[in-house]
Amino acid sequence: MSWEKNVRKVVPYVAGEQPQNKNVIKLNTNECPYPPAPEVECVLHGFDYNILRKYPDPDVSELVAVLAKRHGLSKDQVFVGVGSDDVLAMAFLTFFHSDKPILFPDITYSFYDVWADLYRISYEYQSLDENFRISKSDYYKENGGIVIANPNAPTGVCEEPSFFEDIIKANPDSVVIVDEAYVDFGGKSCVSLINKYENLLVVQTFSKSRALAGLRIGYAMGSKKLIKYLNDVKFSFNSYTMNTVTIKAGIASVQNEEYFNRVTAKIMETRENTKKRLSKLDFVFLDSKTNFIFATHKRVPAQEIFDVLRQNEIYVRHWNKPRIENYLRISIGTDDEMKTVLDFLEQYLKDK
Amino acid sequence: MSWEKNVRKVVPYVAGEQPQNKNVIKLNTNECPYPPAPEVECVLHGFDYNILRKYPDPDVSELVAVLAKRHGLSKDQVFVGVGSDDVLAMAFLTFFHSDKPILFPDITYSFYDVWADLYRISYEYQSLDENFRISKSDYYKENGGIVIANPNAPTGVCEEPSFFEDIIKANPDSVVIVDEAYVDFGGKSCVSLINKYENLLVVQTFSKSRALAGLRIGYAMGSKKLIKYLNDVKFSFNSYTMNTVTIKAGIASVQNEEYFNRVTAKIMETRENTKKRLSKLDFVFLDSKTNFIFATHKRVPAQEIFDVLRQNEIYVRHWNKPRIENYLRISIGTDDEMKTVLDFLEQYLKDK
Repeated sequence: MSWEKNVRKVVPYVAGEQPQNKNVIKLNTNECPYPPAPEVECVLHGFDYNILRKYPDPDVSELVAVLAKRHGLSKDQVFVGVGSDDVLAMAFLTFFHSDKPILFPDITYSFYDVWADLYRISYEYQSLDENFRISKSDYYKENGGIVIANPNAPTGVCEEPSFFEDIIKANPDSVVIVDEAYVDFGGKSCVSLINKYENLLVVQTFSKSRALAGLRIGYAMGSKKLIKYLNDVKFSFNSYTMNTVTIKAGIASVQNEEYFNRVTAKIMETRENTKKRLSKLDFVFLDSKTNFIFATHKRVPAQEIFDVLRQNEIYVRHWNKPRIENYLRISIGTDDEMKTVLDFLEQYLKDK
Repeated sequence: MSWEKNVRKVVPYVAGEQPQNKNVIKLNTNECPYPPAPEVECVLHGFDYNILRKYPDPDVSELVAVLAKRHGLSKDQVFVGVGSDDVLAMAFLTFFHSDKPILFPDITYSFYDVWADLYRISYEYQSLDENFRISKSDYYKENGGIVIANPNAPTGVCEEPSFFEDIIKANPDSVVIVDEAYVDFGGKSCVSLINKYENLLVVQTFSKSRALAGLRIGYAMGSKKLIKYLNDVKFSFNSYTMNTVTIKAGIASVQNEEYFNRVTAKIMETRENTKKRLSKLDFVFLDSKTNFIFATHKRVPAQEIFDVLRQNEIYVRHWNKPRIENYLRISIGTDDEMKTVLDFLEQYLKDK
């Protein structure tokens, strides 16, 4: 049969492993080590399941409203989707619709080229410099769009909003997407630029700082025009992407700002302590403003450390890719988890 | 600014209204009038919310397993998504990837041409005959793919699997999608043909017969090859489309087959009683095998009936489209709801 020749063939993104073994210290997918806001539990345990027979609110109005309020935007400046991957995938489809190549760093979230390949969008990698920093001037040329993660992943390096403002100013003909999945761990958001630049889209997620990876909520913020275009594409794809349980639980999470601040502060504290001990163990790393550290050891290859950690039920992330094959991305867990990992590394590395 | 010229512009699908007014008798979006299986409530009320900090199972293995078992298929023959719209949208993107036009009826689910427009897939409508039936021979010509709803919507007309077998046999070079959103109300599924034809994809949903429109679960069944291609595209779009709550609640629903049979039987009973009364009121309709009836009145225009029902807080669906502008699609509610609607119509129509 020849139906296969009409199939869109793609090489999918490979996500970090989700082991079923409960004993694993799981520092491989940047999940939050603490539970979501307690109000999320109240939503689930008090849920009137009968309302599930009806379709959800297609506009996700209530969740959009609390997010808009939190970020000082109007409701028509916020778009919600099934995790930031869903939001970014729709943004690629919507805004990167030209023959010109889109631009993004060579070392960054590895889904960007997967989406571009899926939608047959041409792209050009822009090399990070030798310190894994973005060179602004790489983005001062003709392009079909720009997407940059800030802080960048898996490097953890963060730039200031003024850095992005220069890029946005230089690109009035392109949509510039700033992917802020990790911005809540000490970075400064580009949301402050939204009312100034019609072509800036800022994407955030509930998966890391709100401990809701399992619920799938991401959102984009931008000008009314951008959000309208994004909604048109969403409503051309699936009227109801966000289910009723998710919407209500998401609202509960946003409404507890105090818990959010406490959890993110705790993770940043653990990160800074982890950095100190990693330094003593002869690791070198970039100044992460995220819930992970991207580190390389002065003497021992990353692959070796990755393997020995794994044998001892400690999962971190490693990519066999040029320039970063000697680095490990280590998510920040609880203090206890980090102590176990660091004690183990201390033992393992002491004679190396 | 000229960034707008690179934007993908589309005309989105317009879903049936979701009124906030609780007094409305809502027969406009084919929702189930009964609650989901009671086990769904147990899942929510007993949910360990702490697990939401972790990503869900990207393969949705457990839900896939119970669905495969229910339909007598293997696990690699089932694909799960965020409602059947998500599944169908991904199937369009995956399988309708040629320059040849895809084929579907002129009167059918109005999302098909929206997806085709979104992905720039060319298409040709095939006219239903004067009785709103599909002419098989319309699908015996070169094409880039075929999608047919069975039972069809909004007509409610159902064909036998043998009818589709003829179409599939005639199209070894195309993927044939049978959209069975409404098959659980008396239709016969084409699932029985899956092991015989590698290019057949059957799509079903939890939104109607499982009373879970608010949870967003749809699924596709087909050959291992089709499901593999679909998964590759899904994993190129969003690794985690199904959240942890949805997966567990979905499993609970599938496991209560007795409740499912009881609810669908009750809706079919109400439908048949509604047909009898509609006939007496001089409505004419097709022999629906769904949870709705597509009816026209012998004397009174559909728009007039639609408007007067709406003024009286009864919502049904009406399209201002050629050939069907004089029809109303009336979802089947509870016996009490249908009595209210029919009593009202009896009064309103008595002097017409």
